[in-house]
Amino acid sequence: MAGCGVRWQYILGAALSGALLLTAGILLGHYAIYKEPQTPEWLHSLSRDLDPALLEDFMNQVEAARIGQNLKDLSSKPHMATTKGDEELVQLILKAWRDPQTGLDSAMEGQYEVFLSFPDPEKPNSVAVVMENGSQAFISQETEKNLTADQADRDVVKPYAAYAPPGNPKGKLVYANQGKMSDYEYLVQQGIDLNGTIAITRYGGAGRADKAINGAKFGVVGVVVYTDPGDINDGKASATETYPYSWYLPPSGVERGSYNSHFGDLLTPYYPAKALSLHPPSCTCSNLAGNPVAEAAWQGALGCVYHLGPGFRQDGLFPNSSEVQVNVHNYRRINTSSNVMGLIRGSVEPDRYVLYGNHRDSWVHGAIDPSSGTAVMLEISRVLGKMVKEGKWRPRRSIIFGSWGAEEFGLIGSTEYTEEFYSKLQQRSVAYINVDIAVFANATLRAQGTPPAQSVIFAAVKTPAADSSLSVYENWKQHFSRNSSVYGVIPSLGSLGAGSDYASFIHYLGITSMDIAYTYDRSKTSARIYPAYHTAFDTFHYAETFIDPGFTSHQTVARTAGNVLIRLADALILPLNVSDYGETLQQMYSVAREAFQADLTHHNISLDPLWAAINRFQAAAAGLNQRIANLREEANPSPLDVRMVNDQLMLLERAFLNPRAFPEKYYYSHVIMASRSSSLATFPGLADAYDNAKEDGLWGEVHKQLTIVIQVIENAASILEPVAE
Amino acid sequence: MAGCGVRWQYILGAALSGALLLTAGILLGHYAIYKEPQTPEWLHSLSRDLDPALLEDFMNQVEAARIGQNLKDLSSKPHMATTKGDEELVQLILKAWRDPQTGLDSAMEGQYEVFLSFPDPEKPNSVAVVMENGSQAFISQETEKNLTADQADRDVVKPYAAYAPPGNPKGKLVYANQGKMSDYEYLVQQGIDLNGTIAITRYGGAGRADKAINGAKFGVVGVVVYTDPGDINDGKASATETYPYSWYLPPSGVERGSYNSHFGDLLTPYYPAKALSLHPPSCTCSNLAGNPVAEAAWQGALGCVYHLGPGFRQDGLFPNSSEVQVNVHNYRRINTSSNVMGLIRGSVEPDRYVLYGNHRDSWVHGAIDPSSGTAVMLEISRVLGKMVKEGKWRPRRSIIFGSWGAEEFGLIGSTEYTEEFYSKLQQRSVAYINVDIAVFANATLRAQGTPPAQSVIFAAVKTPAADSSLSVYENWKQHFSRNSSVYGVIPSLGSLGAGSDYASFIHYLGITSMDIAYTYDRSKTSARIYPAYHTAFDTFHYAETFIDPGFTSHQTVARTAGNVLIRLADALILPLNVSDYGETLQQMYSVAREAFQADLTHHNISLDPLWAAINRFQAAAAGLNQRIANLREEANPSPLDVRMVNDQLMLLERAFLNPRAFPEKYYYSHVIMASRSSSLATFPGLADAYDNAKEDGLWGEVHKQLTIVIQVIENAASILEPVAE
Repeated sequence: MAGCGVRWQYILGAALSGALLLTAGILLGHYAIYKEPQTPEWLHSLSRDLDPALLEDFMNQVEAARIGQNLKDLSSKPHMATTKGDEELVQLILKAWRDPQTGLDSAMEGQYEVFLSFPDPEKPNSVAVVMENGSQAFISQETEKNLTADQADRDVVKPYAAYAPPGNPKGKLVYANQGKMSDYEYLVQQGIDLNGTIAITRYGGAGRADKAINGAKFGVVGVVVYTDPGDINDGKASATETYPYSWYLPPSGVERGSYNSHFGDLLTPYYPAKALSLHPPSCTCSNLAGNPVAEAAWQGALGCVYHLGPGFRQDGLFPNSSEVQVNVHNYRRINTSSNVMGLIRGSVEPDRYVLYGNHRDSWVHGAIDPSSGTAVMLEISRVLGKMVKEGKWRPRRSIIFGSWGAEEFGLIGSTEYTEEFYSKLQQRSVAYINVDIAVFANATLRAQGTPPAQSVIFAAVKTPAADSSLSVYENWKQHFSRNSSVYGVIPSLGSLGAGSDYASFIHYLGITSMDIAYTYDRSKTSARIYPAYHTAFDTFHYAETFIDPGFTSHQTVARTAGNVLIRLADALILPLNVSDYGETLQQMYSVAREAFQADLTHHNISLDPLWAAINRFQAAAAGLNQRIANLREEANPSPLDVRMVNDQLMLLERAFLNPRAFPEKYYYSHVIMASRSSSLATFPGLADAYDNAKEDGLWGEVHKQLTIVIQVIENAASILEPVAE
Repeated sequence: MAGCGVRWQYILGAALSGALLLTAGILLGHYAIYKEPQTPEWLHSLSRDLDPALLEDFMNQVEAARIGQNLKDLSSKPHMATTKGDEELVQLILKAWRDPQTGLDSAMEGQYEVFLSFPDPEKPNSVAVVMENGSQAFISQETEKNLTADQADRDVVKPYAAYAPPGNPKGKLVYANQGKMSDYEYLVQQGIDLNGTIAITRYGGAGRADKAINGAKFGVVGVVVYTDPGDINDGKASATETYPYSWYLPPSGVERGSYNSHFGDLLTPYYPAKALSLHPPSCTCSNLAGNPVAEAAWQGALGCVYHLGPGFRQDGLFPNSSEVQVNVHNYRRINTSSNVMGLIRGSVEPDRYVLYGNHRDSWVHGAIDPSSGTAVMLEISRVLGKMVKEGKWRPRRSIIFGSWGAEEFGLIGSTEYTEEFYSKLQQRSVAYINVDIAVFANATLRAQGTPPAQSVIFAAVKTPAADSSLSVYENWKQHFSRNSSVYGVIPSLGSLGAGSDYASFIHYLGITSMDIAYTYDRSKTSARIYPAYHTAFDTFHYAETFIDPGFTSHQTVARTAGNVLIRLADALILPLNVSDYGETLQQMYSVAREAFQADLTHHNISLDPLWAAINRFQAAAAGLNQRIANLREEANPSPLDVRMVNDQLMLLERAFLNPRAFPEKYYYSHVIMASRSSSLATFPGLADAYDNAKEDGLWGEVHKQLTIVIQVIENAASILEPVAE
């Protein structure tokens, strides 16, 4: 009887003569009275909500020191994709996720044969200045200087431009600023003939490959990309001002990178047929370029006046007739790359997935990129795994961790994963959380995501940071804020581009995605990115000395991302506020109206149906939020009523997909969030079609793209409206 | 206490002195023992399964006479899309679905502005024989003869080829059999120059538009399509052998039809740039064609020897120099077309839709096409609506009825509906049931569908037919059977093409679809289709006299389709057997191996990975079926466990979609079920790529299509596998 929870105090006063009968009565009342069906054991668990105590327990268990140790282990050796170092980390992560005390339910390797590009160890790539007589006046260094011993590791890959095809193009040097279309156009306007030239461009402003693709359109035969200290070192360029004396990039530092034209495996490469060569340079070339002086915005911090070229100036270091030759000896091959996948099975809705991932491969030691993120992921998975192994917890929904391979070559591992399981992931994924570089700098949180991610991130950060009495939220707001038409001044959630492994989740599959990190105090640095990025100086020593001493910012990121993860996995009703999409759509509309309306009216294209669609969307979102509020007030909501609204919240993002909207943009199907060439923060297809129409007069394409946007917003609204009306 | 269902017999024997205490004990046992949470009211309904008594009640209530009356009402006037007759039927259906006693929960009109094509009432289209001097030796009749008064209705549209562009092409006549590519090639092999000719072709063998598109490739400037009595009348051609004396087509009958090159609205038409004109002819031309005699398979039943042409023979009806001129005066316009939508809200899973539809528009009176199907739909909705209004029943899942507009012009209404609500329908639809022509003839059931539809249709038809002691199933098996590798001899489920409104549901959205009808005894007729099809003789009189006297076959179709609908809407676990897909994939594989293997091996393309994928699929399907069987044995399965397997069953079909597989085939995304040019019943993309490679040597495309098939089957298998492994 004790097992039935009889409250003995109610019957202690009963006469002894009645005791037996009373007992019989209790038994009859409990078992014999017809109750159908018997209360099933799942009744309780199906309506269980997020447990604040569990959340606090998690937050308390996340340890900075363990993250530091993870980071040390992960970055002890170079681990470029598919190398020995990478394979060792595969084993390290599998071991962690299979640990009997702190591991997950299961862990496995998913392998892909991926198309990669490496420098030839026998024939170093180089940039040379070649005089008229054929002799070399200058040749670039092969790799970084050995400053902290890490750079001497024999597995450090020499700086190279992955996927640059082999070749030795030669020509007059021109300085093309950031290699944007507008930069090349400016040079042409200055009367410079770009045909047959080698362009030297700074990192920044345009994607790596775009610098070359753009140049090719103007006849440029080779592109040299370098890191200007003005962009990354707050102007510091000398050896004594830079690493190991500060976090700034030493003069010998070279940023490696992939020059893939689109993400994913390139087996069928979408690459300009024209032979292009690309190579990071020594940075002494630029002050030698002759003729017109570059305008102020083009000047860098190499301590001299930048000229445009073509060719070298009369009285300079090299004879005026010298040319620059780019020597690329890269080879391409297909290697086996692994994703490591870890699973915690959901207790109530195992067919709902909360995804969390980061890439594993680096260019060199990759302490910050990506090991800071992996160190955080391993600490989150350790704490959650421990709670599961101890029997204290099992999430409502399944949690899937992914350690992606070959991200640096073009988000390959994560993209292959989404290609292999596209239906399953589209049908079942609640959201994807990406923590790549966890800590760029230790000043403030920085989060990017699609609008429904805002609410869950905000909920997770309204607690004090690890090393401060200020909440993460308040600190974030002090650094990056915006004035929301709905909420007033709030932290500013950035939008997702395609810079890390969230790209295929959001753009290809339409899964609500977010990227979480700690970053700079912008009042203290204007560095384009942390200076050791993609160089041989991105080491554990660099990270612990200059980026996050004590690893407290790592700890805050782990707590934040883990908190978001637990909320998404455990909340009875998904903490995604779809109304926030309405605000974004409205902003985009305002920008479009401001910029395009006059021309559109002139061409008989009306924005009114777009405005009507956005209003319908907002009304539908508000209606759904009201129904959710009502559901929360029900004492015992039906599990299927809860599932219904959760499916609406989860699947909204999918409704913004149209795989036929941008057939020329590989993988980009999300009509609202796709990439755009236009600089305006508005509907990408519409903005680009508008820009094109201004050039070529094809206003029909503008009308088509407007129709696509309207259709997708109407379609999305219908997802939020009552399901049976 | 009575309300609590106490079983008094258990306590009647108790001593009176203990009675009060006993009562207290029962109260304590029932209320005071801690049970949390309180048993919620939804507990019962969430696990309720299909009720056989309800199903039988439905079957009994379906009345043949009411269907007959519906059919009479629906076909009393011509109701071509968007005409007055069509609008009257919109109102008729809205009224039925809003009836207070027998209507649905709600009904509404969905309107689209669709691009249509009509003949000019002032300038009749015609086919003329024009002599050298310019005078007409013959001109075709304008419309059918008035045989039963129906044909005299002023709203009877004159026979025309919808979407044929206006024009007056003229040339020598050739007889091109069915207008297939092989037919035109045969003529060229006979030494006939097709350039500048007018081709006369029989209906059948190729799609309407294909006859013209094919001809254009050979220089044909106009195409005339006619109905050969050999194809539709079992050879009967004279007035006294045909309607109104029999069901055969009278000599004046002309089949109308749409010559759209793809389905859906044609606002951005995908049409050959070449001017083509098409028109149904008088059928006296053919025996006049001169020169070579057509081979046996090309001969028809006009009572004369068919020649090939070009031009007329020397001693014939027309001078040898005469040409044929096709005069088309069609005009195109955008009209408002309505879908009428009716809803029964689901009680437990309102966000799961069982869809049922048929088009409403006809070419003329359309008693059979489509009113036989609409008459059936209205009877089903009446019986179900009545049960709902009486409070006797509410389905577990929502039921959505659709009366589609403008099907005859190219499945326009249904396609626009799927375009407007694509995400919602993809995420929530269990299946789509189509009953267009309900009764072609009264001999046997004929069902088409994707493999998961087989199990639910079989379950529905294992009861006796309305007018027979034989079950519908047994009768069907006697007429159309196949030897299944799994089940032995069973009725043969046909595959879906794109001949009715299921097309966009299955091909564009990947929703499990089926089409149900009654059809011919093939031992008694070889008619290509019922002879009055698309003519002014498809009337209520024709239907009740020759097609289904007493409407018992209509009743059987209503019972069958309604039974399927109720099973899909009410079954706790969806009655879709996904294992049956495995058998289809295996059959397709066998055909591919037999036909392609030798050549593929020669080009280093292996079918082994395809076979492995199919085996994985079959194992996954068997595993899911086992888990379903286990779930059925649980006393109280969790509603979310049930939902999980139902989502796997429901969403499997979606996993066969790849919107990038056939970019040139508008709407066709279902990799397994897409249209194909190849005559082999195997994977369409693979088969067509193979045929092309045999011509052009592009074996890379074969490899690509094979990869697409393998990927989609692996992807589908992953949907059926356990969700968290």
